[in-house]
Amino acid sequence: MPRSKIPLAAQASPDDIEQQFYEALQRGDIEQMMATWSDDDDIVCVHPGGQRLVGPGAIRGAFDAMFAAGTVDVQPDKVRRLQSPGCAVHSVLERIRMLTDEGPQTAWVIATNVYVQAAQGWRLVAHHASPGSPREVPEVAEPASTLH
Amino acid sequence: MPRSKIPLAAQASPDDIEQQFYEALQRGDIEQMMATWSDDDDIVCVHPGGQRLVGPGAIRGAFDAMFAAGTVDVQPDKVRRLQSPGCAVHSVLERIRMLTDEGPQTAWVIATNVYVQAAQGWRLVAHHASPGSPREVPEVAEPASTLH
Repeated sequence: MPRSKIPLAAQASPDDIEQQFYEALQRGDIEQMMATWSDDDDIVCVHPGGQRLVGPGAIRGAFDAMFAAGTVDVQPDKVRRLQSPGCAVHSVLERIRMLTDEGPQTAWVIATNVYVQAAQGWRLVAHHASPGSPREVPEVAEPASTLH
Repeated sequence: MPRSKIPLAAQASPDDIEQQFYEALQRGDIEQMMATWSDDDDIVCVHPGGQRLVGPGAIRGAFDAMFAAGTVDVQPDKVRRLQSPGCAVHSVLERIRMLTDEGPQTAWVIATNVYVQAAQGWRLVAHHASPGSPREVPEVAEPASTLH
């Protein structure tokens, strides 16, 4: 089946863009991935444990390298949405299945996805992901030990 | 000198709010800290290595615990700004000075701060921070080894 490379519909919602983003990760589809992003020079992406990547070129380069290594078995879960005119902030717990020497494992990643409405429609402008707990990440009022 | 507990000015910019946020961290001032945040139930905060905190109650609880342990010697650096109507996304490299058994050390944290313009003015709706490199975090097109 040919991979989708069509531009995303102008009426696509932030939820639609988010679905396209995670499908692109699952399929390793760089064109679908980059179609979810704004083309602003200041879009920013932080992968778990990774450096700050700024701009479409750096972000594409990182996803290219990631997809060269394989696809990502990721499922978004427990999405919290904060919607305002022209801006949507989604907090996502990503459930990632991996095969390890000890068999299949599940890892959790905490991601913040920010979507902004521009002329071409809603687009991703920031994806910040960091490692969560080895098991499902609870939501609590008590902080873990933190740097700040 | 009494600590500022006045509400932030309605005409405060995202940069003003960000300055208040980092000053509150430096001073350990919980009222000033919480004044920078929106009161929306879905505001979200992730401290480096920490869990997802959702809502003003959970976020206040975590900062309360943090400030009970001391202030944070943090300086925002290399801010990248993405501004759209009603929404500002700032990517910040936070330089944190700590005293350790080996003497003073500097740690870097990568933070994404999202501000939304509401009736009361610009307010923080998301702060996602994760550990950076021990030295200054470069911006590169090549990703570090990442989970996804």
